[in-house]
Amino acid sequence: MITAQARAMAGPTDPFSTVTIERRDVGPTDVLLDIAYAGVCHSDVHHARAEFGHTRYPIVPGHEIAGIVREIGTEVTGLTVGDHVGIGCLVDSCRECAVCRAGQESYCRRGKVLTYNGVGRDGQVTLGGYSERTVADQRFVARIPDALPLRSAAPLMCAGITMYQPLRLWGAGPGKRVGILGFGGLGHIGVQISHALGAHTTVLELTEDRRADAERLGADAFRTTGDLASMKDSFDLIVSTVPSTFDLTAHLDLLDFDGTFVNLGVPEEPLRIDPYTLLTNRRKLVGSMSGGMPETQEMLNFCAEHGITAQVEVITAKELDTAYDRLTAGDVRYRFVLDTETIAAS
Amino acid sequence: MITAQARAMAGPTDPFSTVTIERRDVGPTDVLLDIAYAGVCHSDVHHARAEFGHTRYPIVPGHEIAGIVREIGTEVTGLTVGDHVGIGCLVDSCRECAVCRAGQESYCRRGKVLTYNGVGRDGQVTLGGYSERTVADQRFVARIPDALPLRSAAPLMCAGITMYQPLRLWGAGPGKRVGILGFGGLGHIGVQISHALGAHTTVLELTEDRRADAERLGADAFRTTGDLASMKDSFDLIVSTVPSTFDLTAHLDLLDFDGTFVNLGVPEEPLRIDPYTLLTNRRKLVGSMSGGMPETQEMLNFCAEHGITAQVEVITAKELDTAYDRLTAGDVRYRFVLDTETIAAS
Repeated sequence: MITAQARAMAGPTDPFSTVTIERRDVGPTDVLLDIAYAGVCHSDVHHARAEFGHTRYPIVPGHEIAGIVREIGTEVTGLTVGDHVGIGCLVDSCRECAVCRAGQESYCRRGKVLTYNGVGRDGQVTLGGYSERTVADQRFVARIPDALPLRSAAPLMCAGITMYQPLRLWGAGPGKRVGILGFGGLGHIGVQISHALGAHTTVLELTEDRRADAERLGADAFRTTGDLASMKDSFDLIVSTVPSTFDLTAHLDLLDFDGTFVNLGVPEEPLRIDPYTLLTNRRKLVGSMSGGMPETQEMLNFCAEHGITAQVEVITAKELDTAYDRLTAGDVRYRFVLDTETIAAS
Repeated sequence: MITAQARAMAGPTDPFSTVTIERRDVGPTDVLLDIAYAGVCHSDVHHARAEFGHTRYPIVPGHEIAGIVREIGTEVTGLTVGDHVGIGCLVDSCRECAVCRAGQESYCRRGKVLTYNGVGRDGQVTLGGYSERTVADQRFVARIPDALPLRSAAPLMCAGITMYQPLRLWGAGPGKRVGILGFGGLGHIGVQISHALGAHTTVLELTEDRRADAERLGADAFRTTGDLASMKDSFDLIVSTVPSTFDLTAHLDLLDFDGTFVNLGVPEEPLRIDPYTLLTNRRKLVGSMSGGMPETQEMLNFCAEHGITAQVEVITAKELDTAYDRLTAGDVRYRFVLDTETIAAS
């Protein structure tokens, strides 16, 4: 039996505590990894505090996992002990539907298995990355190139692919004008990817506070969004990372002909759109939810090639509760990453 | 001086009356046509009754024009006296911006000139198709193939291109499942185009009333929309012609992976969308506003090849007021067309 120390919450208002969890035995196509770092995504907070309404306790969050292969199953190919690897939002899917066959596992039709707070094929509730080790099928384990430090690569497994996928799909590249709405955990990686893809990249933020960071990470321009109506900029693509309600119509009006607005956030209120603004300029409003495993590997290779990583603040296991509070307050530049070596002592 | 009898409204609540209007002299690139028929689009009612709030009176509506070339300017190429031609929503645009150069005049950046209630290059308010003749630049005059009767081809100049453009752009064709939401003036043409493009075409309507007509025009399936949540259908593309407020989220949920919802209507209320429904299945909500002149010609050729025309009820000049009331009540199958020969006697 494989066991691991992990940080868990017993209920929506409980603090984190250290528990011993079990991982399944290494099957023929499984990979056992020692987790080195786990990114702290804002959705971890929502799940752990039951803000999405369907949390199974005790919960061990964490879907931005970076670690080192410790053991492989007999049928594993392409990975070997000692390799640097990552796990993102999913640890399984049906693998058979048309969407899975197309490598778009995050949209699996028959049921994907979330890395935590999901239910695996064995009927067990999945437990995530705030732990010392885990076991997953090789299909859902990506190789992290050696050029990327594990600590700052961990957030790429969710934030990275979530930005890379729509930027690629909707044509960010030379000659294109891309707006990144919100410069936080997602946005600060999106700017780097958009810049590396060759697009003219503008950060749209509420205040001037993060201008210097944005420019340092590759933003060609920085605009505050207080007075959109007077803004002269025009975009081919805007990717919104804003998780709360905002004036969507005013932002859509910044799009040029055939422009695309990608909404990644899930505010509590419905989105409201003046229908005429979509007609004008043949605009598109699209959603996107992470990306599949082939694209995740492509993204990691791209980030390694271009030196793209998350800007992280490494925390210990005892600091998780404080980190959650700070994340809720928007007080992080730009991603907390849990050092899982600190779990044993917590 | 070129004059024509026309049907005009002097104010938003006035009945139509016959007036004599002037048309500009035929310039080097102009075409003078005798108008045979003019379709009655729902937007005519909105403009004439000032429901869009910016109507210039007297107004002569009509942007679904079919007629016969009577005279051509010295530099006109490709058209000759006697040709069957049509004019749609536009009679001019800047012709120089990137969008115009791409043949997408309906999205002209510097200012398009609507066929009526617009302002032309000469500073004159444009007067539309409810008249005996008109003059327009050859760029905005399309050839109507002889295989198409003028009376039932007239509505193609707005309704036809408005449906054809998004169906083509968003991939209606063999192996695709297309839903046409609303079977009226636009929808009944859209079904024929979608069917001719080879897509599996489903009509989505409020009631069963129009099932037989829909099936006769090529619908593979007909569904009422009273209980969307229990509907088993799944679509790659839905084109909505619904001009009023409806439950957009429930309709978006009918889209499969990478599906597209094209909204053509402009309800008074903002569209409201549950943001999660766009993320799920990577759905797109897009707008579309008619189409450019190259696509309009392509659409006319396509309709001639496939025998696609509007189902029309021909009315006389004196019947316009009644037709407007019936159109507002949804009482038309499926397009009124004004016989302009009846204007002189009205």
